[in-house]
Amino acid sequence: MHAFRSHTCAALNASHVGETVRLAGWVHRIRDHGGVLFIDLRDHYGITQVLCDPDSPVFNEVEKLRSEWCIRIDGNVKARDPELVNPKIPTGEIEVFIRDMEVLGAAEELPLMVFGDQEYPEETRLRYRFLDLRRAEMQKNMTLRSDVVRDLRQRMWDQSFREYQTPIITASSPEGARDFLVPSRLHPGKFYALPQAPQQFKQLLMVSGFDKYFQIAPCFRDEDPRADRSPTDFYQLDMEMSFVEQQDVFDTIQPVIKGAFEAFGGGRKVDEVWPQIPYAEALLKYGTDKPDLRNPIEMQIVSEHFRGSNFAIFAKILEQDGTEIRAIPAPTGGSRKFCDRMNAFAQKEGLPGMGYIFWRDGDDGMEAAGPLAKNIGPERTEAIRQQLGLGVGDAAFFLGGKPSSFEAVAGRARTVIGEELGLTEKDRFAFCWIVDFPMYEKDDETGDIDFSHNPFSMPQGGMDALDGDPLGVLGYQYDLACNGYELVSGAIRNHRPEIMFKAFEIAGYGEDEVRKRFGGMVNAFRFGAPPHGGCALGIDRMVMLLADEQNIREVILFPMNQRAEDLMMGAPSEPTNEQLRELRLRVLPPED
Amino acid sequence: MHAFRSHTCAALNASHVGETVRLAGWVHRIRDHGGVLFIDLRDHYGITQVLCDPDSPVFNEVEKLRSEWCIRIDGNVKARDPELVNPKIPTGEIEVFIRDMEVLGAAEELPLMVFGDQEYPEETRLRYRFLDLRRAEMQKNMTLRSDVVRDLRQRMWDQSFREYQTPIITASSPEGARDFLVPSRLHPGKFYALPQAPQQFKQLLMVSGFDKYFQIAPCFRDEDPRADRSPTDFYQLDMEMSFVEQQDVFDTIQPVIKGAFEAFGGGRKVDEVWPQIPYAEALLKYGTDKPDLRNPIEMQIVSEHFRGSNFAIFAKILEQDGTEIRAIPAPTGGSRKFCDRMNAFAQKEGLPGMGYIFWRDGDDGMEAAGPLAKNIGPERTEAIRQQLGLGVGDAAFFLGGKPSSFEAVAGRARTVIGEELGLTEKDRFAFCWIVDFPMYEKDDETGDIDFSHNPFSMPQGGMDALDGDPLGVLGYQYDLACNGYELVSGAIRNHRPEIMFKAFEIAGYGEDEVRKRFGGMVNAFRFGAPPHGGCALGIDRMVMLLADEQNIREVILFPMNQRAEDLMMGAPSEPTNEQLRELRLRVLPPED
Repeated sequence: MHAFRSHTCAALNASHVGETVRLAGWVHRIRDHGGVLFIDLRDHYGITQVLCDPDSPVFNEVEKLRSEWCIRIDGNVKARDPELVNPKIPTGEIEVFIRDMEVLGAAEELPLMVFGDQEYPEETRLRYRFLDLRRAEMQKNMTLRSDVVRDLRQRMWDQSFREYQTPIITASSPEGARDFLVPSRLHPGKFYALPQAPQQFKQLLMVSGFDKYFQIAPCFRDEDPRADRSPTDFYQLDMEMSFVEQQDVFDTIQPVIKGAFEAFGGGRKVDEVWPQIPYAEALLKYGTDKPDLRNPIEMQIVSEHFRGSNFAIFAKILEQDGTEIRAIPAPTGGSRKFCDRMNAFAQKEGLPGMGYIFWRDGDDGMEAAGPLAKNIGPERTEAIRQQLGLGVGDAAFFLGGKPSSFEAVAGRARTVIGEELGLTEKDRFAFCWIVDFPMYEKDDETGDIDFSHNPFSMPQGGMDALDGDPLGVLGYQYDLACNGYELVSGAIRNHRPEIMFKAFEIAGYGEDEVRKRFGGMVNAFRFGAPPHGGCALGIDRMVMLLADEQNIREVILFPMNQRAEDLMMGAPSEPTNEQLRELRLRVLPPED
Repeated sequence: MHAFRSHTCAALNASHVGETVRLAGWVHRIRDHGGVLFIDLRDHYGITQVLCDPDSPVFNEVEKLRSEWCIRIDGNVKARDPELVNPKIPTGEIEVFIRDMEVLGAAEELPLMVFGDQEYPEETRLRYRFLDLRRAEMQKNMTLRSDVVRDLRQRMWDQSFREYQTPIITASSPEGARDFLVPSRLHPGKFYALPQAPQQFKQLLMVSGFDKYFQIAPCFRDEDPRADRSPTDFYQLDMEMSFVEQQDVFDTIQPVIKGAFEAFGGGRKVDEVWPQIPYAEALLKYGTDKPDLRNPIEMQIVSEHFRGSNFAIFAKILEQDGTEIRAIPAPTGGSRKFCDRMNAFAQKEGLPGMGYIFWRDGDDGMEAAGPLAKNIGPERTEAIRQQLGLGVGDAAFFLGGKPSSFEAVAGRARTVIGEELGLTEKDRFAFCWIVDFPMYEKDDETGDIDFSHNPFSMPQGGMDALDGDPLGVLGYQYDLACNGYELVSGAIRNHRPEIMFKAFEIAGYGEDEVRKRFGGMVNAFRFGAPPHGGCALGIDRMVMLLADEQNIREVILFPMNQRAEDLMMGAPSEPTNEQLRELRLRVLPPED
C-alpha cells in the first residue's frame, strides 16, 4: 500500500464497503459521541467521515488529535446506517473505522479556524494565509482562478494564437503609472524596471513577424492600493495581432471572453449582444466609460426644456458655453422620500444637489411633483416626461453645468438609483465595447494638450486628422466594460513613425524625447512595421466577477495587504549592508 | 475583402488558381528577371511568390520595394509552369500577379539581413532583435518554445495538477544565489525581492492543502552570465505534490518529460529506461552528477592493481588516506597518438597528466603499450585489461589521488574521449535520475559543515540520521540529467519543524536565524504540514536541447547580452532624480 493514501478523501463510496483503505488529510472537525470519536477528515478533494471507538488499537492517540492536525489513517470502510447517509457529499454513504493512525504534522493552537464561517480581520487572514487558504471558499476561488486561466489559454490557442514570454527584468517605460525599479549589480547606479505591461514587447513581436501573440502576463505597477487592484503585480491576458483592424480584434477576443464567462459563470446570463458605444455617448448616457448595462437607465440631454425657463439656476447655467442639463430617468422612483435621498446622495458627492420631478396620481389624474416642476410649469414638465418616457410612479433627476463637472456623480447616481429601485438585473454579465476614445484632452488649468489615454494608438484618419483640432481627433482605441468594470483595454497601434512623432509633437513631446522614452519600439518601426492591434484583459478582475467577490484579494493566493506588505513572508524588509554595498546604494534618512 | 489579407502567405495552392486574393507580409527577396519583378512575400506562416510585370498598374511602385518592407498586395492567382513548380513549399504550385500594392511599413537600410544564412555578431543580433527574430531559424525556435510550454502544461493538467500563480514581488529568501532587490516606495529603505524560485510559496501551497501544484514560473537570479544560463530571469516548470515519496514524484514527472521529448525531439531516440543512479556512483562512474549516458564509458576503481606496484607515483599516492586510482576505459582508443592527445588534455585541465595503457597486435599476439604497462608489469596490466573488458585496439587512462582532486577532470576527459572516438551516440536523449545526494559537505579549508545542496530536503532516516556523522547523511533529493545537462532538480521536503531546526543546527544556523530567513515557511509548518515533495524543470534548457542549440539566447525572445544589458530597450538605465527621491535612495560614487 502507498505510504500515505490509497484514496483521496472524496473517493470512497458504497462500492468500497469492506475494503481496507489508507487516507491522509487534515482533521476538519472532531466530535465525541458517547465515547466514539467522529472525525471529518479533509483533503483538497473532499471530506470522509472516519471514526474511532475505544476498541481501536489507536484510540488513545486519536483522542489527542485537534483541528488541522495532518494525519494518515488506515481503516475499514463500512456502510452508514441508512438514516445516517449524507447525500450532500460524495462519501456520504460510508464511514471508515480507524485501525491505525499516524500524525504527519501536528498543529499548534490555531489563530484562525478553517472549519465554520467565522470572519477574521484581513491582517489575520493574510498573516496566516496558509490556514485561510484551507477554507472551502478560498479553495474554490483559487481553483476557479486556475481553471479560468487554463480556459482562456485554451481558447486563445484554438484561435491560432501562440503564447510567448516577454522579459520581466527590462527597461523603464513610463506608460502612465509608476515603475518598480530593480537596481543593477553589474552596472551600479543603473536600474532595470519591471514592465507595467508587455506593451512594447508585444508590439516588437509584431514587428518581428509573429502575427498572433498572447500571454498570461504578470504586470507591475507601483500604485496605491485599491479594492479592485493589487498594489504590486497583477495578471493580464495580453494579446496582439498583425494585419488587423479594430473589428478583427473584437471578433477574436469576444468569443474567448464570452465562452469563459459562460463556462464559469455558474449559470448567470451572459449577454449575447455586446453593443459598441462611442466614448462620448457612454459619458452622456451612463456618466462613465465603463457603464453597467444591467442597469437600464440611460441619461438624456434635456437642456431645451430649461432654457429660458423660470428655474433660474438651470436657465442661467445654460447661458454659459459648453453647459447642458441632463436628466436621469428613475422608473418606479416616484416618491418624495426616494427623491430626497438621491438629492442628499448628490450633495454627499460634492454637488449642490439634484433637482427632481416625480409623477403621481393627483386629484385630476397624473400630477408632477417637486419644486422643479413648479418652477418650469406644466408644459415644460410634460415635455420632459414625454421625452423620458416616464409615467405615474416614476421620477427624474436633473443635473446642470459643464458635463465634466457633474458627469461622474451622475454616473454614480445612476448606479445607486438602479440598485435601490431594483432596476439593475442580478445574475447577469452585461458587456459593451466603448470605442472612439478621444486621442487628446486639454488640461483645464494649464490649457496644455496631452494624451487622454494610450499614446500608442492610431488616430482615426491618420496623419490628416492630426492637422486639425487635436481635441476632435478620435483614436482606434477601445475598452470592454462588464457590469461596470473595465475588463479589457486595447487599440489599433500607431505603427508609422512619422504619424507617431506628429502625435507626440501635439502632446508636447519632441522626437528626441520620444526616442528616449520608447526607443526600442520607435527604432523597430523604421524597419517594416506591420499594422497591428490588440488588447489586454484583467485576469484578477475577471475572476473576481466570476467568483462574485468584491475584493481582489479574495482571488489572489498570496496578496499584499493595503499597505503593499506581505505579513506572512515579511516583505518588504531591510536589505543587508552587503546587498546595499554591492548595488552601491545608500538609503537616505526621512526628510523632515 | 479584408483590409489587409484574404489569405496568409502559406495558404494558396492550385485550388485557388483564378481567384483574386489579397496578401500582406514582408518582401523577403526581390529579383528582376528580364524586367519582371519576382518577390518572395513572407509572413509568419510561409512564403508566396508574387510577381509584377511592366503591365501591372503598380509596376513603378513595386520597383521601389526593398527587402523587409511590409506590404499589402492584391493580385490574381495563376498556376506556375510545371517546370517552375517548387514542391518544397506549400505554395509552390502557384504565383500571384500583382494588380495593386500598398506599402504598410517601409524599411530603412538593414543592419542585418533576414534572408540568407549570413552570421552576425551577437551584439548586432540583440540590438536589432526584431529583425533577427524574423529569420526562419529564430521563428522556428520561438514557436518550438511556445509549443513545448503548452505541451508541458497540458501534460501536467492531464496528471490532475492545477497551475497556480505565486507572487513575483516578494521577500528576500537566500537560497544560494543573489536576489534581485526592488526598493519599496511606500516603505522607503525597505526592499522587496524577486523570487529565485517559488520554493517557499509552493511549499506553503502544500500546507494550504492544494495537493498538486504546478507553474510555468519565472525565476530571478542575479548571477554572472553563462552560455546555458540567462543572467537575469529564466523559466521553470515548477511542481509540488502532497502525501508523496520520492518515487511518486518520478512516476509523475517522468512521463511528462518523456512525452514532450518524444513529441518535439524530431525523431531523435528518447530512452525508455531512466536509471536511478546514486550520487556517489555517478561521481565514480562518470565524474559528474549530470552524466551523459549517450557516452557508454564508465570509469572504474583500479587501485588494487597499483598498490605496491613499481609505478611509484600511484603506489605512493595510495599510501595516503582517501586516495584512489581510477581508470577511464577507451574502447577503440588504442593508438599512441590518441593517448598522447588525451594526456595533453588532462594537462591543459590542470592535472599533471593521465597515465595510459593501450593494447595492440604485437609479434606474439596482443601486447600492452605505454609507460605504465612497463612499470607495473604484464600480470597487473593483464588484470586491469580483464577488469575493464578491453582488447586489441583499446586504451585505458588512469588518474590517481583524492577523488575530489581529479574527479571533475576525469568526467570531462570521459566526455572528450567519448566524442573523439565516436562512442557517444548522436540523435538520442539519454536520461538518468541522480539520487541519494549527501545532505552536508565539509569545507576543506575551514572544516565547517554546510548544506551541500538544498537545505529544505528531508534527510533519509529523519531525526535519527541527524544524530550520526553529518557527512554520512543522505537526503531525499534528486536531479534528472539529460545528455550531460541538469534538467530537473527536486526533493522530498523536510516538513517537520523539529527535524528542520536540527538539520540547520548541524550546518551552524540557530533557530533564530532559520526563522529570520525562512520565517514564512517555518511558521506554516507549525500548523499541520503534510509530507510533500516536488521538482523544477528548466524550460530554457529543455528547449535548447530540443532545438539543438548550444546557447540559451537562441531560445529566448529578448535575452540580455552577456553583460546583463538589453541593448534594444536600453536596460539598465539611469533613474531620474525624482525616482530616486521617491525611493529615498542615493547612488554612491565608485570606490577607488
